[in-house]
Amino acid sequence: MSEKIIHAIQDDYSDDYSWCYGCGRLNKDGLKLRTGWEGENTITYYTPKPEHTAIPGFVYGGIIGSLIDCHGTGSAALALHRKNGHEPGEGLEPPRFVTASLHVDYIKPTPQEVPLKAIGTVEEIHPKKWKIQIEVHADNHCTAKGEVIAVVMPKTFDNK
Amino acid sequence: MSEKIIHAIQDDYSDDYSWCYGCGRLNKDGLKLRTGWEGENTITYYTPKPEHTAIPGFVYGGIIGSLIDCHGTGSAALALHRKNGHEPGEGLEPPRFVTASLHVDYIKPTPQEVPLKAIGTVEEIHPKKWKIQIEVHADNHCTAKGEVIAVVMPKTFDNK
Repeated sequence: MSEKIIHAIQDDYSDDYSWCYGCGRLNKDGLKLRTGWEGENTITYYTPKPEHTAIPGFVYGGIIGSLIDCHGTGSAALALHRKNGHEPGEGLEPPRFVTASLHVDYIKPTPQEVPLKAIGTVEEIHPKKWKIQIEVHADNHCTAKGEVIAVVMPKTFDNK
Repeated sequence: MSEKIIHAIQDDYSDDYSWCYGCGRLNKDGLKLRTGWEGENTITYYTPKPEHTAIPGFVYGGIIGSLIDCHGTGSAALALHRKNGHEPGEGLEPPRFVTASLHVDYIKPTPQEVPLKAIGTVEEIHPKKWKIQIEVHADNHCTAKGEVIAVVMPKTFDNK
């Protein structure tokens, strides 16, 4: 499978909103998650680092939660950007979402040293509130399912 | 408030089960979360690192999810250990739990540079399955609420 997102929504966030530990392109210590379209689904790839272990051999659940979290906000940004007539890569600043809630069901242990693929299905439940259903796959097996409710970033987050 | 757990359940996990990125005492790159009793509640303290940002000034939701995740499994281990007649610090190996599901509601932005306190309430729903309700407090304000369903580690995780 392809493991590279060509046009990620995070590439187009403004610098001020690009410091997220999960998906900020300017956070040198972060995971640098990148989320793009694959048909009508949204996709993020990530290979956990060796230290991201739960029990040796298996990926830490908090990293899977982080992957689902940022995949959710990225997917919502992709979807609202598309609704507004835009695609990532055009260089236009997309809307920035934050997470209202995160849910993860851990289906089976996730093996380490395997690229993970998060696959999202996006649903608008309000113009500023989107629901994203997410499956995390390792070696073509679904090891976790998640749901994110993402909302357009409220002013309480704005330090500009 | 006290920000130090004297007897943490993670101190008594066997070496084989002490590599968790969130709470393993042997994972030098991890968060080293430590969970203990405070009366009938369970407590974990953690001050996120500067790079654990969402939007500058506020903590990344994935780190809050990780805190809730490991606080959940640690709380379940504390509770079953107590049910079996033991307390952390006695040097007896406690049961090791893994996360079946994780839910986080982000109530308000969590400020950075503040020690976070996770407070857990533990409920047995089956001898091998426990539910933990968790509040995360920053500066005495609740910024996130979580629920973890933790189960005794199944053999699918056992690499021994």
